[in-house]
Amino acid sequence: MTPPFSKILGNLPAMTPFVGPETIERRRAKPFRLRLGANESNFGVSPKVTAAIVEAAPRAFWYCDPEHFDLRGKLAAKHGVERTNVVIGEGIDGLLGVIVRAFTDPGDTIVTSAGAYPTFNYHVVGYGGRLDFVPYTAACANDPQALVEAARRTDAKLLYLSNPDNPTGSFLGADAVSFILDKLPERCLLVFDEAYAEFAPPSGLLPLDAADPRLIRLRTFSKTHGLAGMRVGYAIAAPEIVAAFDKIRLHFGVGRLSQIAAAAAVDDPGFEAQTVAAVAAGRRDYEDLARGLNLPSLASHTNFVPIDLGTSARAGRMLALLEERDVFVRRPGVAPLDRFVRVSVGLPEERTLFAEIFHDALRAL
Amino acid sequence: MTPPFSKILGNLPAMTPFVGPETIERRRAKPFRLRLGANESNFGVSPKVTAAIVEAAPRAFWYCDPEHFDLRGKLAAKHGVERTNVVIGEGIDGLLGVIVRAFTDPGDTIVTSAGAYPTFNYHVVGYGGRLDFVPYTAACANDPQALVEAARRTDAKLLYLSNPDNPTGSFLGADAVSFILDKLPERCLLVFDEAYAEFAPPSGLLPLDAADPRLIRLRTFSKTHGLAGMRVGYAIAAPEIVAAFDKIRLHFGVGRLSQIAAAAAVDDPGFEAQTVAAVAAGRRDYEDLARGLNLPSLASHTNFVPIDLGTSARAGRMLALLEERDVFVRRPGVAPLDRFVRVSVGLPEERTLFAEIFHDALRAL
Repeated sequence: MTPPFSKILGNLPAMTPFVGPETIERRRAKPFRLRLGANESNFGVSPKVTAAIVEAAPRAFWYCDPEHFDLRGKLAAKHGVERTNVVIGEGIDGLLGVIVRAFTDPGDTIVTSAGAYPTFNYHVVGYGGRLDFVPYTAACANDPQALVEAARRTDAKLLYLSNPDNPTGSFLGADAVSFILDKLPERCLLVFDEAYAEFAPPSGLLPLDAADPRLIRLRTFSKTHGLAGMRVGYAIAAPEIVAAFDKIRLHFGVGRLSQIAAAAAVDDPGFEAQTVAAVAAGRRDYEDLARGLNLPSLASHTNFVPIDLGTSARAGRMLALLEERDVFVRRPGVAPLDRFVRVSVGLPEERTLFAEIFHDALRAL
Repeated sequence: MTPPFSKILGNLPAMTPFVGPETIERRRAKPFRLRLGANESNFGVSPKVTAAIVEAAPRAFWYCDPEHFDLRGKLAAKHGVERTNVVIGEGIDGLLGVIVRAFTDPGDTIVTSAGAYPTFNYHVVGYGGRLDFVPYTAACANDPQALVEAARRTDAKLLYLSNPDNPTGSFLGADAVSFILDKLPERCLLVFDEAYAEFAPPSGLLPLDAADPRLIRLRTFSKTHGLAGMRVGYAIAAPEIVAAFDKIRLHFGVGRLSQIAAAAAVDDPGFEAQTVAAVAAGRRDYEDLARGLNLPSLASHTNFVPIDLGTSARAGRMLALLEERDVFVRRPGVAPLDRFVRVSVGLPEERTLFAEIFHDALRAL
């Protein structure tokens, strides 16, 4: 018997939307030596955060505060906004799901760059939306003009933009983002994914106007704060948007320990700054590595560097050669970006080892 | 400007769906002395679980395995089912949201007992469903006959049943649940919330047939395992139902630390048994307390006891008197259950203190 699925679910194809490194390790029956594919922060967690988790662990039996009062207060102070401008979710992934659900009806069109964040697309399809894809520019950046044209042509309800961008690492300055906001069709929101914002030049970031009803900014504790395994993201938006989240979000979805860990991370800006500096040094190492091998790489404003293997076939083969050598990296899924191998910035010793293995794999290519 | 909400969200009223004890504490500007209102497990977390969390904390920077392979394997072994029968979610709350989304369309009817778990209702309303409420029996138990009649009359897509029941503590044996399953209308699933199953007589539980496509069983780590603050629940269901979850669930919603903590909890069945025994002793204390005050209480198969204050007005006043005395308990929200005060089983010393304060509050009533 087919279970009595909803109309939308009944029409979704069978799929395995996310293949994590653990799945590949099980398939290989062998662990990776270098885990550099998920843009995790191998620089780890602030010792203050670890201490907060350890202290909180014996009281894991308490439910969380569903209002995230303390954490929202700290984030509001950090960003110079009000607590009513901040909503917490189960990572940016969780917030993206709520946004699609809150602002689109089945059949609505949503615009995004072709090859941008797959989890956003997963939510759109899962709620019955239609995706309209805009190619990246020849320089592998989001294309402001083409994105707003697509949004206007399709009467889109949402326009998704990650900035700095994943998987290209490219960055649009405040003027380009303002251009998009000014040209957005009426009743279309900009879903502004700033997961990598801490790695971008601060002077280039769009100024924060928490009353602006045209966009939702998304931030995460998974990158500079190293809390990918605890699932805490947040959105900054106009109060009427934040209030609407409360009508449908999973109120107890971000547990007590995760909230405590994230709050401790906000209290340690020194660790964040240290990670940002360490990542910048690591990007330079990867750029040098690519240059030494006569491979182009993209200028990245994130914690990863895309290295250009020239063709999709070569990049795919390189991915396999690296996997054979126990290295986990990723390749963007959509042409023309699938000619890149995307390498997360690891620790100095991981980068040294990666350089050796990369040389070796390239010889075998 | 009103944000461009979806049709469903645009029609949802403003609301504060969940008021946690932290919110009440902020309003009072004073912490509670006794936190006995959320059916948390004050017996805490297994030392093995705490150790696992502490060990995993420095690696919080890794994303989780989105397939929950290890944890599902342990749960499959525990319950004698296959890994393909198990799906993990952000607590039962998170799984209930996925279930409503997966198996109902807007406008569909969903049947539940009047006064049963509000979070389920929250999801139904949030996805545009209609709730049909069935009164509890005079003995404050779910009414199998009336529930299936309502499901048939309304052509319901889902029938929600918590067993043991929250907030009454009542329990339907396997025969009564089988009766419901046999009488369910075609294309209606039983959402079988067994959050409190560990506290029920094992011989009374519905036998586990993981191939039965008529129901989804829900379990949690928030009760006997004391992991309410880490958000891990799971469903046991037919493989075609579990597979469908993968098309819409939040794949990274249950973080790495939560998965590790839950797996460690499965590995310590002794701790679970100890908690179950300690809770049984605590229930007897509360029953004795009520009896000594000539107040009826409900026979409970959970980690809480409902004490009957006779009328809604008296129960409401009692709640306020207890809050004045720094005690957090809850009162069911819907008549006729709102004449009860629901008290979670605390530690022995918490029960002694609660008895003193309850006596005092009752004198003031």
